[in-house]
Amino acid sequence: MSRFFSEKYKSLVPYTPGEQPKDMKYVKLNTNESPFPPSKKAVEYAAAEAGKYQLYSDPECTDLVAIASRHFGVCKDCILFTNGSDEILNFAFMAFCDCDRPAYFPNITYGFYSVFAEINNVPYVEIPLLEDFTIDINDYKGIKGAIFIANPNAPTGIALTLSQIEEIIVSNPESVVVIDEAYVDFGAESAVPLTKKYDNLLVTQTFSKSRSMAGARLGFGIASKALIQDLNTIKYSTNPYNVNRATMAAGVGSLEDEDYTVENCKKIIATRERTANELKALGFEMTKSMANFIFARHREIDGEKLYLELKARGILVRHFSKPDLCQYNRITVGTDGQMDTLISAIKEILGV
Amino acid sequence: MSRFFSEKYKSLVPYTPGEQPKDMKYVKLNTNESPFPPSKKAVEYAAAEAGKYQLYSDPECTDLVAIASRHFGVCKDCILFTNGSDEILNFAFMAFCDCDRPAYFPNITYGFYSVFAEINNVPYVEIPLLEDFTIDINDYKGIKGAIFIANPNAPTGIALTLSQIEEIIVSNPESVVVIDEAYVDFGAESAVPLTKKYDNLLVTQTFSKSRSMAGARLGFGIASKALIQDLNTIKYSTNPYNVNRATMAAGVGSLEDEDYTVENCKKIIATRERTANELKALGFEMTKSMANFIFARHREIDGEKLYLELKARGILVRHFSKPDLCQYNRITVGTDGQMDTLISAIKEILGV
Repeated sequence: MSRFFSEKYKSLVPYTPGEQPKDMKYVKLNTNESPFPPSKKAVEYAAAEAGKYQLYSDPECTDLVAIASRHFGVCKDCILFTNGSDEILNFAFMAFCDCDRPAYFPNITYGFYSVFAEINNVPYVEIPLLEDFTIDINDYKGIKGAIFIANPNAPTGIALTLSQIEEIIVSNPESVVVIDEAYVDFGAESAVPLTKKYDNLLVTQTFSKSRSMAGARLGFGIASKALIQDLNTIKYSTNPYNVNRATMAAGVGSLEDEDYTVENCKKIIATRERTANELKALGFEMTKSMANFIFARHREIDGEKLYLELKARGILVRHFSKPDLCQYNRITVGTDGQMDTLISAIKEILGV
Repeated sequence: MSRFFSEKYKSLVPYTPGEQPKDMKYVKLNTNESPFPPSKKAVEYAAAEAGKYQLYSDPECTDLVAIASRHFGVCKDCILFTNGSDEILNFAFMAFCDCDRPAYFPNITYGFYSVFAEINNVPYVEIPLLEDFTIDINDYKGIKGAIFIANPNAPTGIALTLSQIEEIIVSNPESVVVIDEAYVDFGAESAVPLTKKYDNLLVTQTFSKSRSMAGARLGFGIASKALIQDLNTIKYSTNPYNVNRATMAAGVGSLEDEDYTVENCKKIIATRERTANELKALGFEMTKSMANFIFARHREIDGEKLYLELKARGILVRHFSKPDLCQYNRITVGTDGQMDTLISAIKEILGV
């Protein structure tokens, strides 16, 4: 830390991204990336756009907004694209929270929410999950502040139903409810249609997971026109050209090639279910994941030990040191082949 | 504005990017883009990277930092890449300014500085330029806060010498001095070497102008290790994967192809000087620009009128409505052909 760093950030503890070791080639099951390449159209459009890098990208993302508007069945003024969904989540903490409006989110969820709160000097309340890692929606009623719920939740993968989400929205008419749907395409129900009904709902999504574009950085929010206008005020006051040309074009390509995304999601869901069954047979317990990862612990082997044993065998999974979670590992669902490698390694570790 | 928008931003006036009209094809001389395509290597590397979009980009930008470290002759811990240089400028306002440490910058400069101050709730002082649009460095001594100077300045194009910059740095040992070198490659002296000598200096640059990569969004800062560490704390608390894969690879390609950048800058400088002389012959007055634009007014024709007349002829330049500037237009230096078109149109407008 320099002697110039502002007092207000001196105690800030940044988010820790999943490790990206460079010492060897791993089977990477630790950051919930897709095991499939992006759509060929996305790659082709992005590559063509690189040749036009000398011109600024369109700050209004006109073409991308147009196709997304048709795809999601919402009006163009109700969509905002950002440099990954982290950016729109940060914008939401900036726009809809302050000293008088704390942020509320589960105590076990995407680890970045508390960091966004801290950096924006927003007080926050972490609402405990039930013992089985589910959300009790009664804990999210009559709240004065803003609510952030990842659906499905991370790292548990457990999803709320659309009617549960609606119940939360309805019971908080004076608070913005942000539903972070980073993993929604793997089996949960999207709340996007509810944005037309409720002016206090912001749904965020990302192209990182189901659309195989983590490295392109493309996220977005869908909400009422007024909420999007507020988020645009933040965008145009920090980074108007936040989405680069190649990513923008890749986003269009991906949305034009919807069948490819749907097929990939089907494959990942099938692989998830098969892997979950195999892990159960080996003595693992796990949550009911609707995401592209499995959150599991073994009855006999320590969570951190399993993580280290897998790493020693060239397989990376994500381990969290938080006491509630430290017996678990979050395992990204890869290809069937990658899951076979995982299962073999686990059998070896367990000696079965 | 929604009823949920935080009080603290209700009076925020966002930055207005240069217009990007879609009604027809213009000779675009309004956003200081390069008239030349990016380096072939940059395009090739970016295109190859799009096929790996399914994997997150490297948050540490390892390869890009390595080549930049060699290129600029500074250590790897002294460089931070961002999503355009607007992002690192915003980070600097966050990290080094607060209620007790106001931001100081010229009253005529990059219009975003005051917006960054506003959104971060940082008080700011706009120090008037002298009548000839130059900076009096005596106005920037003994300041308690943080100093932001674009060198060359925008939209005037006037540069301070390196010894003037050093005098400002030396006379403010308790304040961070940010030198925004977006346009430095077109004839001014870079302060990068001074970052090894002074712990209070941050130099920011961009790949948008001289490297023809405005649409890729790539900026960076060079400073002492401690300042970069502070800026990294901000980055990892807002958007760790802020630079996408294709842009990162394009950045490497551009730095590997330095001759191309140097050649382009030479061409732009030659075209700038020739155009400036032609404009002078037509009755224009202008500042001594060391940037890729010319800031000029005509003795007889109103600035806004000239802007509109040029637009009607398919040529876009940038006009500012601020009273001090409204007689001027900022004209990006394009190719020789584009400048010929501009000069012909101006002759037609002037009736000469």
